[in-house]
Amino acid sequence: MVVSRDEQFELKRNALLREAAGAFAARGYHATSLDEVAASLGVTKAALYHYVRSKQEILFECHMRAMDLGDQALEHARAQPGSAFDRVVALARRYVELITGAMGRMAVLSEFDALDDASKEIVAARRDRWDRAMREMIAEGVVDGSIRPVDAKLAVFYLMGAINWMSRWYRPEGDASGARIAATFSELFAEGIRARSRADACPAGERVSPRESTDG
Amino acid sequence: MVVSRDEQFELKRNALLREAAGAFAARGYHATSLDEVAASLGVTKAALYHYVRSKQEILFECHMRAMDLGDQALEHARAQPGSAFDRVVALARRYVELITGAMGRMAVLSEFDALDDASKEIVAARRDRWDRAMREMIAEGVVDGSIRPVDAKLAVFYLMGAINWMSRWYRPEGDASGARIAATFSELFAEGIRARSRADACPAGERVSPRESTDG
Repeated sequence: MVVSRDEQFELKRNALLREAAGAFAARGYHATSLDEVAASLGVTKAALYHYVRSKQEILFECHMRAMDLGDQALEHARAQPGSAFDRVVALARRYVELITGAMGRMAVLSEFDALDDASKEIVAARRDRWDRAMREMIAEGVVDGSIRPVDAKLAVFYLMGAINWMSRWYRPEGDASGARIAATFSELFAEGIRARSRADACPAGERVSPRESTDG
Repeated sequence: MVVSRDEQFELKRNALLREAAGAFAARGYHATSLDEVAASLGVTKAALYHYVRSKQEILFECHMRAMDLGDQALEHARAQPGSAFDRVVALARRYVELITGAMGRMAVLSEFDALDDASKEIVAARRDRWDRAMREMIAEGVVDGSIRPVDAKLAVFYLMGAINWMSRWYRPEGDASGARIAATFSELFAEGIRARSRADACPAGERVSPRESTDG
């Protein structure tokens, strides 16, 4: 494979962003200066400036990369055969797989307020678009009968909260691998939204009334 | 009801913490000074200092209050009749009800790195104890057969992530009431962990093989 100079730059920049995100994760975004990032990466500040101009830019690019992964997961999900339920579950699973694989420690993603106003607007607008896409997918599932009637907006906030909060505890070197978390989280969500027809469970027609919910 | 001087102080201090949390939520914890908090509360800085000594103290007390509510929810859950599943679901629901009711805007709870080291240790230890209590409740449910076999540790991280991330989007004046979010989130979680026995659904014995999971 021939890698062009531009591609090389991007590869190096990505590696640097990942390492910088790790440096911020270790000591906190606000408490860590760009000097300290350079030191922890073992490069000069001049070398660092070749790739990024500021802490702010690192923060913004990390958010954009996380959303690139979100878009990849969305593409993957849309290409799934089957019901909207299958697509929603594939989306949840793939997004967790991608974000744990590519981002390393992602504490920096919990820093939204630290973005400047222009960056905030870009990040928020992109996140809203993504949320809407997932919401529509859930609504399709309610229509095609594969997903039980749920509040799609709150269901997206719920799932994305569970995933985004990983920025606070996920460690690539921790007990639970990204693949394991992806499988567990997507299954918890899948069972939470799955439509359950008694006819499915009892094809011979031995239907019973739905059990009373115990949390009503 | 006779309210003692100490109780009056606590009531006023609680109200002030709630308002201060709102002021931080509006502009970001790091970007808002204690002077600005006093101004937005319409009190003098001297009056503010009567109740809290620093931004840091406000932050710490907000975290402690959130965990007081967590403990209240735990007590409520433990007093539930029924299975461990019922207790876990009651815990999730009551915690969301309490935190949306008492905290107002809770953006400040997403600020953990801003705590000083001693406070971080106290908050983290208390949160770990709480997480363990919920994990044990889930494990009991797997044993008593009311909860399907799940990774209890990841299930707690998943649910608490969904709830903690509310600090980023919940608004008391928003579309979804705290009660509605509590009902939706606890139901999504309940269905996600509920044990499903075919015998339950088909008492006449018309069991079918479990459907293949679509996200395997």
